[in-house]
Amino acid sequence: MKLYETKTAPNPRRVRIFLAEKGLLDQVELIQLDLQKGENLTPAYAAKNPMKKVPVLELESGDCVAETMAICRYFEEAFPDSPRLLGTTALEKAQIDQWLRWIDFYFMTPTGMGFQHTTGYFKDRMTPFPEWGEECKKQAARFFNFLDRHLADKQFIMGDQFTAADINALCTVDFNRVIQQRIAPEQVNLQAWHDRVSARASAKA
Amino acid sequence: MKLYETKTAPNPRRVRIFLAEKGLLDQVELIQLDLQKGENLTPAYAAKNPMKKVPVLELESGDCVAETMAICRYFEEAFPDSPRLLGTTALEKAQIDQWLRWIDFYFMTPTGMGFQHTTGYFKDRMTPFPEWGEECKKQAARFFNFLDRHLADKQFIMGDQFTAADINALCTVDFNRVIQQRIAPEQVNLQAWHDRVSARASAKA
Repeated sequence: MKLYETKTAPNPRRVRIFLAEKGLLDQVELIQLDLQKGENLTPAYAAKNPMKKVPVLELESGDCVAETMAICRYFEEAFPDSPRLLGTTALEKAQIDQWLRWIDFYFMTPTGMGFQHTTGYFKDRMTPFPEWGEECKKQAARFFNFLDRHLADKQFIMGDQFTAADINALCTVDFNRVIQQRIAPEQVNLQAWHDRVSARASAKA
Repeated sequence: MKLYETKTAPNPRRVRIFLAEKGLLDQVELIQLDLQKGENLTPAYAAKNPMKKVPVLELESGDCVAETMAICRYFEEAFPDSPRLLGTTALEKAQIDQWLRWIDFYFMTPTGMGFQHTTGYFKDRMTPFPEWGEECKKQAARFFNFLDRHLADKQFIMGDQFTAADINALCTVDFNRVIQQRIAPEQVNLQAWHDRVSARASAKA
């Protein structure tokens, strides 16, 4: 299988860590795309993913799957003997999904928009609105506080169990560096969790 | 089980149609919240969902699940004999998830932001940026075209099979009325699909 990705981008990192935790990194050939050069904007790539984003998984059959969590779901379902990262019971699966969506909508999306709208990184292909970008940065900053409070009495976001929610939160916290936002000294729960998940071998994937 | 929702809001409608398709509407007691009056902003509701959004599912155990698709996933997993709307094989599950995320990120989110930022509907609790709202409306309009092209040779988004992707696309197309966007006369594939899915009994749920 081929995984089209960009080593420095946050969403592909989510997939790499997910695969590393499952022991499945050797299942994929990583193919690098340079986003700022627009290597994701070619007709050949748009045929794999009309949204022109990384990552994309291409199966041996030629079937493609775009979207980070959809790719992760493919591996969760196709390799049921690997460690479960999306839950086992109906309630666990639903509550992990809830967290994945909170992290996407209220943390990753504002971080990405904060980056794109305040820096103009992709201004060749979109109109940045700097005031909106500043608002997004504040939204992302509020999620640091929310996570810090949530983690007061927990090893991981779901409690004792490491899940994909930890992977996505880790990658989003780290991605906040590009908008100059980091864990504050008083966010001790968040910092302890960050130390814990960053120490896992998968975090270097 | 209790489902906290708002009859006129688009995300609760996604859950109601999902339950109707599965024959599970009688499993939940619907509890209405008036969003503009801020009935979702109380401490009691924030304890169920810190993001203060509808819908929220509350189980008999008191456990809560927020986020539309996480609630749908709960029912998909907890009632495995009901019609599958999130796929059966690993590839189907992943490709449906891909579509759910495309619809959320590139259609529903821009529609919602277009509404909030151009109308100031929630200006008591957020700062609207009208120019950004106009950009979001254009993004949502582009997704109408994308869907129209995709549906040229298909009964449903995934082909012959009705899935949650059709539910979410239907609710988002219809929700575009609040920003004065409707299916254009030339979008004949999208219109035929819309007629088809709107004719299902579930669409009135």
